[in-house]
Amino acid sequence: MNNFQYCTPTRILFGKDVVDKLPEVMRPLGKRVLMTYGSGSIKRSGLYDKVMSLMKGFEVYELPDIEPNPKYTQSVVPGVKMCKEHKIDVILAVGGGSVLDCSKAIAAGACYDGEPWDLITYKVRTQAALPIVDIMTMAATGSEYDCGGVISRSETNDKVGYIDPHLFPVCSLLDPQLTFSIPPKHTRAGIADAMNHIMEQFFTEPYSLLNDGMCIAGLKSLMYNAPKVMANPEDYDARAEIFYTCTLACNNIFSNGNGRSGWPMHGMEHALSAYYDITHGEGLAILTPRWMKHILNEKTVGRFVTYGTELFGIDSNLDPMVIAEQAIQKTYDFFKELGLPMTLHEVGIDESRLGEMAHHVAQNEGLDKAWAPLSEKDILDIFKACL
Amino acid sequence: MNNFQYCTPTRILFGKDVVDKLPEVMRPLGKRVLMTYGSGSIKRSGLYDKVMSLMKGFEVYELPDIEPNPKYTQSVVPGVKMCKEHKIDVILAVGGGSVLDCSKAIAAGACYDGEPWDLITYKVRTQAALPIVDIMTMAATGSEYDCGGVISRSETNDKVGYIDPHLFPVCSLLDPQLTFSIPPKHTRAGIADAMNHIMEQFFTEPYSLLNDGMCIAGLKSLMYNAPKVMANPEDYDARAEIFYTCTLACNNIFSNGNGRSGWPMHGMEHALSAYYDITHGEGLAILTPRWMKHILNEKTVGRFVTYGTELFGIDSNLDPMVIAEQAIQKTYDFFKELGLPMTLHEVGIDESRLGEMAHHVAQNEGLDKAWAPLSEKDILDIFKACL
Repeated sequence: MNNFQYCTPTRILFGKDVVDKLPEVMRPLGKRVLMTYGSGSIKRSGLYDKVMSLMKGFEVYELPDIEPNPKYTQSVVPGVKMCKEHKIDVILAVGGGSVLDCSKAIAAGACYDGEPWDLITYKVRTQAALPIVDIMTMAATGSEYDCGGVISRSETNDKVGYIDPHLFPVCSLLDPQLTFSIPPKHTRAGIADAMNHIMEQFFTEPYSLLNDGMCIAGLKSLMYNAPKVMANPEDYDARAEIFYTCTLACNNIFSNGNGRSGWPMHGMEHALSAYYDITHGEGLAILTPRWMKHILNEKTVGRFVTYGTELFGIDSNLDPMVIAEQAIQKTYDFFKELGLPMTLHEVGIDESRLGEMAHHVAQNEGLDKAWAPLSEKDILDIFKACL
Repeated sequence: MNNFQYCTPTRILFGKDVVDKLPEVMRPLGKRVLMTYGSGSIKRSGLYDKVMSLMKGFEVYELPDIEPNPKYTQSVVPGVKMCKEHKIDVILAVGGGSVLDCSKAIAAGACYDGEPWDLITYKVRTQAALPIVDIMTMAATGSEYDCGGVISRSETNDKVGYIDPHLFPVCSLLDPQLTFSIPPKHTRAGIADAMNHIMEQFFTEPYSLLNDGMCIAGLKSLMYNAPKVMANPEDYDARAEIFYTCTLACNNIFSNGNGRSGWPMHGMEHALSAYYDITHGEGLAILTPRWMKHILNEKTVGRFVTYGTELFGIDSNLDPMVIAEQAIQKTYDFFKELGLPMTLHEVGIDESRLGEMAHHVAQNEGLDKAWAPLSEKDILDIFKACL
């Protein structure tokens, strides 16, 4: 087991109607609030009105229209400006992972005199951030229980992960009922995203029996409940379990002490959604089985054997390579049957820019140092296999 | 899934030589330190000297000789007095769960003007506590990552759990190498304690696939590594995995959203060790299979089926009651083979006070409201089955 540090100070309030606790959560944090949200689904669902009525007595400023794959110039910069102008005390993020990721970058930018991009790219170390409270309406990224976010800058095709301990939300209010209305496309993509978060932690060495068991438990929970919520979007227990698993899936609690994996699928997907603005979870679902197939070899096969026998119950007496190939096929089949697009063509990506993207990933994501190292050629081959 | 709140703000530094980070951990917390420790094994091992040399520049006061099953009158009261007299800023607990539990009660008592027992018994709500840093030398209780402690008061045969969010350690420094020298008796007892913590979270309803998987992962990790450390006490990876599993096993991360179990085995064991001062983990090992056998019925059998098939790989096609009975037998066998005492006689307890203890438990532990409710007669029957 490797040495590790771990600290997740975020308070989780999870369950039916926890949003009612918003005023008591917000009160100690200040009076001047920047409320961030996305395209307006919270207005259609009635959540916006509910939050506004709970926030009576606070001074609420609004930053709406935060995009999926949130943008630096369009959302982070204006948000930082608003915080400074209105002397904001606390950010209230209401929406999915994109809204919260964007709010994290705003929270840090608001406490920094220079260009926020310096912080996001680690040119300058983050020294402080405004407190953040979130009400999540999507089960996917786990941003509600980690200290990271992903910010895109369209001008340069950058999509970068920004991680800093100052970015943990103070409190995450998670009501599974708010996820009933997620459209099927995003329910699926969220599940694929969280599954991939777990795989990125699992496929590495060293590992432990405890971490392996927790990873498999998380994957089983998502895979068992996924068809249930597709069939009945208001299945509370299934939505709840998916939501909570997503919450834990991205903050290292499943992999403390494991070796560094390098998060290769995320590294590659960031290029896909930076260049083509596709849905992150769909990009991951497409990449996952192709990445697996590409890196499978004598050195990596052991992890696939554990994955295949423990998750899918594949007979452990089979040849390890056979177990691995069956496990990869079953992974593909699961995503496919869930209704996810499984080729780049389906999400509007053709071969024209694959080389450019592979070059960008090779330059920026450090995947040559991943558990299963990837050269630019490897990355391009994986992209091509996804067409 | 039930609604829940969860927040564990403790920072974990885990791995080889993390104790070297002590000065940087302590510096922001203050200069005047109360160092608490036990019988002196830290002096024999050299850890005391190491800590003292790291603490140069701090003003260190010492509270040694904290007992196993730490005592209110003998340790908590004098510790609180020292904190007040010397205006202590921060407590540094060096030792096992008893030292840390005791330090938590001292930390709260130091910030309260009345009798600390008021806080421990919830007569008065805890409003504040001194910050605590710990260096754990035992893998067992998980006190390093929870906000509870157990304090005994011999005069009244009380042994009470004291839980409050102010009691989370600020930072826990956990070096598996420090557990190499734990004697076999306490290595076994620590493993039994942590296994029981997980079982107390597992045997209840409702439950989730995620929590079940995490509980089983924790149990597998402990059971797989237990014989390894018994055979080779300096097996770093086995010690590390046991230590980390113990750390997670008592803070609800394995059971958020599960129903309340009532922690029945702990409720009963507290009487055994309050009346006879036995080793907590040994008491739990003795009680576990007898409690299981006693509560097994048509209503509870489902949990035993999951436990038996997932943990021991018992054939799921067998009759549920057969699976349950096999699982209980295997639990007994595991403890027995590990070398734990499996009868009350072996730990010096005879029938003379069983009735008195059962009455005490029935009066004080609320086990009539446990998942599998226990009357005073049930408790007495379980005690008798342990003889």
